[in-house]
Amino acid sequence: MSALYRRLSAACRVSPGTKVRLRAFDPAATFDPQLRALRGRTLKQRAQQLLQANHAELANMQELLWASGAYSVLVVLQGMDAAGKDGMIKHVMQGINPQGCDVHRFAQPSAEELDHNFLWRSWQRLPARGHIGIFNRSYYEEVLVVRVHSSLLAAERLPATTAGRHLWKDRFTDINHFERHLVRNGTLVLKFFLNLSKAEQKRRLLERLEQRNKRWKFSSADLEERGYWNEYADAYESMLSSTSSSWAPWYIIPADHKYVARAVVATILAGQIDALGLTFPVVAAAEERKLAAAKRRLLGATRKR
Amino acid sequence: MSALYRRLSAACRVSPGTKVRLRAFDPAATFDPQLRALRGRTLKQRAQQLLQANHAELANMQELLWASGAYSVLVVLQGMDAAGKDGMIKHVMQGINPQGCDVHRFAQPSAEELDHNFLWRSWQRLPARGHIGIFNRSYYEEVLVVRVHSSLLAAERLPATTAGRHLWKDRFTDINHFERHLVRNGTLVLKFFLNLSKAEQKRRLLERLEQRNKRWKFSSADLEERGYWNEYADAYESMLSSTSSSWAPWYIIPADHKYVARAVVATILAGQIDALGLTFPVVAAAEERKLAAAKRRLLGATRKR
Repeated sequence: MSALYRRLSAACRVSPGTKVRLRAFDPAATFDPQLRALRGRTLKQRAQQLLQANHAELANMQELLWASGAYSVLVVLQGMDAAGKDGMIKHVMQGINPQGCDVHRFAQPSAEELDHNFLWRSWQRLPARGHIGIFNRSYYEEVLVVRVHSSLLAAERLPATTAGRHLWKDRFTDINHFERHLVRNGTLVLKFFLNLSKAEQKRRLLERLEQRNKRWKFSSADLEERGYWNEYADAYESMLSSTSSSWAPWYIIPADHKYVARAVVATILAGQIDALGLTFPVVAAAEERKLAAAKRRLLGATRKR
Repeated sequence: MSALYRRLSAACRVSPGTKVRLRAFDPAATFDPQLRALRGRTLKQRAQQLLQANHAELANMQELLWASGAYSVLVVLQGMDAAGKDGMIKHVMQGINPQGCDVHRFAQPSAEELDHNFLWRSWQRLPARGHIGIFNRSYYEEVLVVRVHSSLLAAERLPATTAGRHLWKDRFTDINHFERHLVRNGTLVLKFFLNLSKAEQKRRLLERLEQRNKRWKFSSADLEERGYWNEYADAYESMLSSTSSSWAPWYIIPADHKYVARAVVATILAGQIDALGLTFPVVAAAEERKLAAAKRRLLGATRKR
C-alpha cells in the first residue's frame, strides 16, 4: 500500500514553485499502471478495491488521531461545479466515525461574514485536535469565484490600499502564512483540486436534468458559471502555482472517473496521516500507579457489596 | 421492519406524564422475542443483522432529509460514564454521509459559556435543515451533573430569585418549551437514555484499565462519579419523568448489551425519520420549463464547439 501511496502522491502533487498549466493534466487519467497489481478485472473494480482497503486504514488512522490528541487534519476540496466534491466526502469518509469528522460546506458569505476579513469564517470551522475537518469549498473561493466576479469583491468593501493591483498576490501570501501557522501548530493540511473536463461537466449536468431523483441538485447558477469556464481555469492555475507549499501542497486529482478520484484521494489521505507516525498514548509510570490504585478500588468495591 | 420498529419503540418509549422508576427497566433486556424472526443463530448475530439493515435505511433517509431540506434531526444521547455513547455514534452512524451528520460532544462549559444562560451553547450547535445532529451529552447535563454537584450550579452565578426551590422544575419547563419550539420549526427531537447497570459499568471500567489500547480512555474522574451512582439515578428518574413529552419523548435503551442497544437505537431512529414521510422534491411546472431551457442550452453549446 505504502509504495502505491508514494507513486500516486508523486503523480498528483504540485511541486512548490511550479507554474501549473492545467492542459498538462489529463482529467481522465486512470493511473492504470499503478493500480495494475490490485485485484479486479476492470479499472473500476481495481479502484473500488483500493478505496475499500483505505476505508479500513482511515478508520484506524482516525482512532489513533483521536487517541493521541495532538494533531488535526484539514482536508480542502476544490473543483468546478459537478466535479464530485459531495460524492468524494460521502464515499471516502463513509467508514469514518462521524464523531471525529466535521464537514463544512462554504456557501455565499453572510452579511456578518462579509463584515470580517476573508479568512475569518474559516477560522470558526477549523477542526479541533483529534478531528478530521473537511472544507467543501473553502477560503480558496476568495481567489476563485471572487476573482472571476468582481461584484463579489466589491461586496467585501476593502480599503482602497488593499484593493490595489497586488490584491491576488497578497491573498496568496496571506493564505500561505495562514496554512503555515496551522501546520506549525499541529494541523495536517491536505488540498485536493478535483480536475474535471468541460465535456464531463456537461455530461453530469445533463444527468442531473434527466434523472428524476437528481433534478433537485441542478441549479441554473451552475450553467451561468459554466459560461466562465476559461476565467475559472485561469484562476485555478494561478492559485495552484502560488499556494502549493512544502507545508501544504496541492494535489491535482483527475476527476472525470469518479471511482479513480475517490480511490486516489483516500490513498493520499491515509498515507499522509500514516506518515505522522502516531501511536496510542503511553501511560507514564506515575500514572500507572494511579491506574493500579483505581483498579484496586473498583475491585474492592465489589467485595464490600 | 416497520412492525419491529413499532414494537421496539413502544417497549422503550417513556409515555408523557409517567413517573419513571429505573428499577422497573432491565439494563440487560435483550428483546429476544421481538428479534426472534431475524436471521442469525445467536442474539448477537440477530442484533447485528438488524443494525446492518438499518444502516442502509439510514443512508437513504439521510439523503431524503437532505434533498427535501425542510427537516432536521436532533439526537440526544445521555447515560452514565461507559454507557456506550461514543460506540453508539460510531456504530450506528458509520454508514452515514458525514456531510449531513454533525456530532457535538458537550464537555465542561467554558468561561464564556458560563456567562450565558444554560441553553445558550446548545443553540450554537443545533443541526441545520437537512442535517442529523448528534449531541453526545447535552443540555440535560444541566439537570444531571449540575444537580448532583452543587459547586457546578454555583459556578453559573444565577440570580437569587432563579436559584430557589423551583429551580429543577423550572429547568424542566424551559427544556420542554425549547424542544417544543424546535419541533414546531421542523426539528425531529429524539432522546435516548442508555440505561447501564452498575455491575456492567464496573466491568467496562476494568476493561479500560486492563487493555493497553483502552487505557487512555480511563479517567479517574469516572471513578469519582461512580461514587455518586444513586444521586445520578435519582436525577435521571426525575429528568425522565418530567421531560418525556409527546413532541420529544425519551427512550430508555437497555445498554448492558452494546449490540442490542445499537440495533434498537438504529431501528427507532430510522423508523422515526421514515415516519416524516419525506419524498424527493417535485419540480414545479414553471421550473420544468426552466430546466428544459437549460438542457437545450447545454446541448446547443456542444454543437457550437
